[in-house]
Amino acid sequence: MNHGVILNVLGRLLRFLGAIMLLPLLVAIYYGDSLYPFLTAVIITGFTGILLSHRYSSSDEWKTREGFAIVAFGWLSVAIFGSIPFMLDGIAPVNAIFESMSGFTTTGATVLLDIESHTRSILFWRSMTQWLGGMGIIMLFIAILPKLGVAGRQLFRAEAPGPTEDKIKPRIRETAKILWLVYFTISIVEIIALVLADLSLYDAVTHTFTTMACGGFSPYSESIAAFDSPLVEGIITFFMLVAGANFALHYRTLRTDRSSLLKDDEFKFYLFIVSFATLILTFSLWDDMGEELFTAFRFAVFQVVSITTTTGFATTDFNLWVDSAKIVLLAVMFIGGCAGSTSGGVKVVRFLLLLKYARRALFKSIHPRAVKPVKFNNKAVPDDVMQAIVSFVVIYLMIFAISTALLSLMGMDLISSITASIATLGNIGPGFGLVGPMSNFDVVPFVGKLILITNMWIGRLEVFTVIVILTPEFWKR
Amino acid sequence: MNHGVILNVLGRLLRFLGAIMLLPLLVAIYYGDSLYPFLTAVIITGFTGILLSHRYSSSDEWKTREGFAIVAFGWLSVAIFGSIPFMLDGIAPVNAIFESMSGFTTTGATVLLDIESHTRSILFWRSMTQWLGGMGIIMLFIAILPKLGVAGRQLFRAEAPGPTEDKIKPRIRETAKILWLVYFTISIVEIIALVLADLSLYDAVTHTFTTMACGGFSPYSESIAAFDSPLVEGIITFFMLVAGANFALHYRTLRTDRSSLLKDDEFKFYLFIVSFATLILTFSLWDDMGEELFTAFRFAVFQVVSITTTTGFATTDFNLWVDSAKIVLLAVMFIGGCAGSTSGGVKVVRFLLLLKYARRALFKSIHPRAVKPVKFNNKAVPDDVMQAIVSFVVIYLMIFAISTALLSLMGMDLISSITASIATLGNIGPGFGLVGPMSNFDVVPFVGKLILITNMWIGRLEVFTVIVILTPEFWKR
Repeated sequence: MNHGVILNVLGRLLRFLGAIMLLPLLVAIYYGDSLYPFLTAVIITGFTGILLSHRYSSSDEWKTREGFAIVAFGWLSVAIFGSIPFMLDGIAPVNAIFESMSGFTTTGATVLLDIESHTRSILFWRSMTQWLGGMGIIMLFIAILPKLGVAGRQLFRAEAPGPTEDKIKPRIRETAKILWLVYFTISIVEIIALVLADLSLYDAVTHTFTTMACGGFSPYSESIAAFDSPLVEGIITFFMLVAGANFALHYRTLRTDRSSLLKDDEFKFYLFIVSFATLILTFSLWDDMGEELFTAFRFAVFQVVSITTTTGFATTDFNLWVDSAKIVLLAVMFIGGCAGSTSGGVKVVRFLLLLKYARRALFKSIHPRAVKPVKFNNKAVPDDVMQAIVSFVVIYLMIFAISTALLSLMGMDLISSITASIATLGNIGPGFGLVGPMSNFDVVPFVGKLILITNMWIGRLEVFTVIVILTPEFWKR
Repeated sequence: MNHGVILNVLGRLLRFLGAIMLLPLLVAIYYGDSLYPFLTAVIITGFTGILLSHRYSSSDEWKTREGFAIVAFGWLSVAIFGSIPFMLDGIAPVNAIFESMSGFTTTGATVLLDIESHTRSILFWRSMTQWLGGMGIIMLFIAILPKLGVAGRQLFRAEAPGPTEDKIKPRIRETAKILWLVYFTISIVEIIALVLADLSLYDAVTHTFTTMACGGFSPYSESIAAFDSPLVEGIITFFMLVAGANFALHYRTLRTDRSSLLKDDEFKFYLFIVSFATLILTFSLWDDMGEELFTAFRFAVFQVVSITTTTGFATTDFNLWVDSAKIVLLAVMFIGGCAGSTSGGVKVVRFLLLLKYARRALFKSIHPRAVKPVKFNNKAVPDDVMQAIVSFVVIYLMIFAISTALLSLMGMDLISSITASIATLGNIGPGFGLVGPMSNFDVVPFVGKLILITNMWIGRLEVFTVIVILTPEFWKR
């Protein structure tokens, strides 16, 4: 293992983060907030970055391991240094790191007791961490900073290891640039739409940051319910749906083939899941809770899209819904959005391929000698991809089970433990019970918070990247 | 598809069931109970059997499909005809079929409101259905009745499709005989042990029936708590552990190699799971519920073994435990006992192999070119076995999710819906909430009962056998 190169790249990443933090500093100047949190954060982060990148020398000779280590520790460092403004704003260290990790990983789980009591620049930074994490801060780093060369691909794969690799361009830096450009462009469109729907520029920008990232933070403790506007809900629903789909397909749709999305098996299944869940949820809210049909549909479509895309916005306190409505949300929590999107969770493609795999097994038990490969977009899925998917799901469910068990051993009730675990591991945000959409994660005991921080970190990097560096095998010579 | 042969074998199976029902008839004579329920059941079942087996002609030319159909419909018919005595005892038809299916599939979930109000012969039959279903009524049929020939193997595999095939003898009839003989012998030993522990012969026999089958029915609504005897609990714990292990290994241990069990990867992992879960549960009951250490251990070891082996006996109302204790039981509900045992659930071997598979994937992400097969008992596990395991788990979890969703849409709360689904699909018995160990499944709405009956049927035949016959592909020419 080449420790030097890891520390060098981490240093460059922190220098980059320090530079990014100049933006919330400008926001603080604009709103006349205290400059102290961001000024100090810029200095500490930038200085640490410069120190590391000068002390250790760069090299292009990486193997897979260095890539894993840089991405895993990179995300951890970014979350920790990104929490400095929160700490200096008076938030306890573990809470600040929780909030920052929840931001960068686009989880959207919050520990802030009174969100509105914080300054606008702090809340701007809180939303912005999600936007940075959404498309991937390391991908942004690859896109903007030169001289990563071939090794950039290792980082790219370790940050976004989805089962479907979409090579938009042969050079990884070009791919990263394009994806970030698409992300940036759609974000601008959403800001304009929200401003036209009568939101202030501040509200439009902060909510666009957290919509496009499938993040879910809002500067209001009531989340999207604060606006009480079907138009705003409609706009946000649309952009959540977009953000939960594959950005490589968005690029193709915009540049080459208008029907790229509709030809994609994953996108079709994603729309099916959202429609089906909305239908059931509408029925449940209408039949079991006596809502009017339109109101039931309005709540249902927003909440299903919000949870399926792992955003986590709320337009009502769904923790108060009947259990038949909650189960719909619980089910989609275990699926998530599309691969190559900014969403989290298991991802629709993995779920779809497992179902196809199981269907094939049923077919084979009747026709034992038939050769029938599992197909995705009309191509046979290679065995090693299926193996990776199965392993992903097994490890994912194990972490979920262990996390749930540990939380309940700390005295949390079953439903809160279950949903807190899946909501952080799937980068969703709110759960049910103690951690419902109108409550917050501050009730979780200290050690529980550390577990949930780890869940978010593991979930955002799709399990392998973090779990691998936690195995002794990884550190063997 | 050869419909004639299916109906012929079903007829022979029902004739066989009719003959078996003479035993509870003798019990009814002995206790002076009304003979009407069993006499009628024997006549209806036997007559239907004779009618079918004479009307349709036998043949030895089966394919896999006929095997699936015979076993799936065979179990359904046995559950329905086996419920006749319950119906004639005044139990409503759907409840009678629920109780009978719960018996034969060794689930142990009950809908009886006042168990003690039923006659001793009815409760004897209720326990006996579990003993018949435990080792498999079709395996008993293969072992005892001649002339099934080669085709018997199809039935054997469809009834007990575990991933590890244990060929004790080259001829399937010999294997079935030996397994039933081992089962019978250990049952006799347990009866003697329970009688020596001061139980009446009736109690010893009925509880042995339901221990050895990993069933869980008891003629007492308080289950094993009725005896309040650490000795009885100890004996039952031991025999549940034995019944949850592989009977082919028991045969080897008794006949050839004393260390057969301890050399087996699955058995070792099974003991590890039981010990680990007992440890955590003891701690939770002691720390969170303030039980004395010995009492905590006594409850913990019994309940962990009872749930892991999917028996479902209770020595206390574990539904009243704190959530940290419940989560331990919930976790083992998803694992189950060993393949080749009388237990249900996913089975330890499948769980173990999935973990090994995931560990290999982690290893391969560091060493992409390494060749490292997943091993079980020092042999490489073939790819098709892994595929079958993955497909099994995917279908199993899908059925679990659909069943949970349907129950909660009928108005059941989340925890009751979740545990009722897994407790029936895994052939465990009691769950939490409405379906806790001291409650009963009568609260489940009518359609919900049909779903749970289907779950038990699907679970006992390890998913494929039933699901396959429900696909249109199966019925194509």
